[in-house]
Amino acid sequence: MTSGASTPAIIPVTAPVIALDVMGGDAGLADVMAAADVASERYPRLRFRLHGPEARIKAELARCPRLSTATIVHTDEVVLGTDKPSQALRRGRTSSMGMAIDSVKQGAAHAAVSAGNTGALMAMSLFALRTMPGIDRPALAALLPTLKNDSVVLDLGANTECDAENLVQFAVMGAAFARTVLGLEKPRVALLNIGEEELKGTDEIRDAAALLRGAALPMTFEGFVEGDKIGQGNVDVIVTDGFSGNIALKTAEGTGKLVVGLLTRAFQSSWLTQLGYLLSRGALRALRAHLDPNAHNGAVFLGLNGIIVKSHGSANVLGIANAIGVAHDLIVGNVGDRILQDLANFQAHRPAVADDAADAAETVGKA
Amino acid sequence: MTSGASTPAIIPVTAPVIALDVMGGDAGLADVMAAADVASERYPRLRFRLHGPEARIKAELARCPRLSTATIVHTDEVVLGTDKPSQALRRGRTSSMGMAIDSVKQGAAHAAVSAGNTGALMAMSLFALRTMPGIDRPALAALLPTLKNDSVVLDLGANTECDAENLVQFAVMGAAFARTVLGLEKPRVALLNIGEEELKGTDEIRDAAALLRGAALPMTFEGFVEGDKIGQGNVDVIVTDGFSGNIALKTAEGTGKLVVGLLTRAFQSSWLTQLGYLLSRGALRALRAHLDPNAHNGAVFLGLNGIIVKSHGSANVLGIANAIGVAHDLIVGNVGDRILQDLANFQAHRPAVADDAADAAETVGKA
Repeated sequence: MTSGASTPAIIPVTAPVIALDVMGGDAGLADVMAAADVASERYPRLRFRLHGPEARIKAELARCPRLSTATIVHTDEVVLGTDKPSQALRRGRTSSMGMAIDSVKQGAAHAAVSAGNTGALMAMSLFALRTMPGIDRPALAALLPTLKNDSVVLDLGANTECDAENLVQFAVMGAAFARTVLGLEKPRVALLNIGEEELKGTDEIRDAAALLRGAALPMTFEGFVEGDKIGQGNVDVIVTDGFSGNIALKTAEGTGKLVVGLLTRAFQSSWLTQLGYLLSRGALRALRAHLDPNAHNGAVFLGLNGIIVKSHGSANVLGIANAIGVAHDLIVGNVGDRILQDLANFQAHRPAVADDAADAAETVGKA
Repeated sequence: MTSGASTPAIIPVTAPVIALDVMGGDAGLADVMAAADVASERYPRLRFRLHGPEARIKAELARCPRLSTATIVHTDEVVLGTDKPSQALRRGRTSSMGMAIDSVKQGAAHAAVSAGNTGALMAMSLFALRTMPGIDRPALAALLPTLKNDSVVLDLGANTECDAENLVQFAVMGAAFARTVLGLEKPRVALLNIGEEELKGTDEIRDAAALLRGAALPMTFEGFVEGDKIGQGNVDVIVTDGFSGNIALKTAEGTGKLVVGLLTRAFQSSWLTQLGYLLSRGALRALRAHLDPNAHNGAVFLGLNGIIVKSHGSANVLGIANAIGVAHDLIVGNVGDRILQDLANFQAHRPAVADDAADAAETVGKA
């Protein structure tokens, strides 16, 4: 376990530049620019490249005093929410989304932020930026609210099927995300599984666990975690394939809505409960704020040669500003170099897993 | 689509007998017997075989007047919560759980109900009863609360990986469950997926959808459903492999607890919200009752030659009585014959799926 003793220090980025697709999402250009303005107040060193129709951007700049230093990159073209990834790949390169990605590729920006079509953003980013050395597949990561601090969950739908190697790479990327965005020195990482015992789950998950258990990485590997533990906040990074991750994320969303729906119905059941509701409104607002997707906005495609942040399509100004904040933290914390360094360390001290797995299988046979 | 025109009518069972493992679960013998007494009040024709220590059962009978007709099958042996399935298979046959299953195998009971060790119950049931003709793997099904009526979800963890054929069999079994327990004539069935478009998900899921779309079955196939739709109650049966099903079920449980935890914290934040809580208590109790696992108790192993119902280990008297009620409904509704008939119909009018899938693949290539 000689993690990183001889590795060079990560150099923070001091003049972060974000390429912003001002045309993506339901919010519209004015709100996306207002969000950039809010983010500029939070992070005064942040600079923007604004991708979209120049005349409309200029008209809006009057209301966004902090964006006076922004570079405008004109385009009238837009990727629609209904465009298929294949259509976006063929025709989207000169769209606001495509050009924001291109800004990252050309080195004119450190990160791109878009609230547009997820599939198109993922396909175009992968095509333009390619995966980092040592990463086979990028993963979609996001923050989820828990009873304690937010947790990072990945992959949320980029990869339907994953092998052990993919899962290990996701763990490395998720930990780097937690270190840069959540500010944790040694995040607790676990694999999502259907039981906590060592022999539960698929071969891929068990092999990934064996690799992570013996790895020299700046994280604490906590083994397996079940779905009911996601909300408890006892681990910082939850690693899973894109199918299960998507199911878990959406089931959590759906259950949250179910409980809130039942609660609303319950409060309307009598004049007494309606009065109770009036008195408790402040508390219920705080609950809603804690669960508000805008407070946890900013899903990230990790593992590309460049940072791509997807803001939720229905995010409001503060939500988009939070997504820009995530991009800012990933740039300043130099998430890319961290991932490269951790992967190099992992490969240099790679645990002998084939043996472990064979041993475990033998033990089962004997039981 | 000539579903069932020439098939014989299903004959209801009029004298249902349930083999009850009185030693399973946290509740203890007295509560399990009290639950049987409650169920006897609800279903006066129900008869019991009580498996456990005779002296203790007899002592308890004084408090359970409706169980006077019960047969007692003595055993002092018990499967522990910590026993592995392999241990239960070797040593559990003469335990209260093993003998309850044996009662079903010997034809002395139509169903067995146990609140004991899930893995042991599953392994012993499969070994003793075997799968029904036409079923490759049994599935664990349960009821989940939604904004409308309960939904059936399966598989919840019996099978980590499933092919298209398994998923179709789960759909047939889940629909038969919904018809007998929820009383629906033509349940709406959907496959859990990471998107609703026809080309989303794994090959297994897409192939299963193609098979179900063309099948002559007493259900309405609704295509794919995402995790956030589980709580809405717009479909009656949600079909998935045991890995995703377990993740979804536990994530829903965990999120429910998270929201209730945050709510409790919110209500304690000031004297005003505490007063609001006091006034709303009735409504919040109703909410808790709606989500109470005891109200939805009774997971079923479907696809075996016999009905096996697993009561939640932490269920109370009413919860166990509900699990017994589920067993009662499955017996009386003759779920086994329904499944056999539907499978026979499905195979007789089996849709040509390989062609459909090839067509779809071609379309994608051209897109």
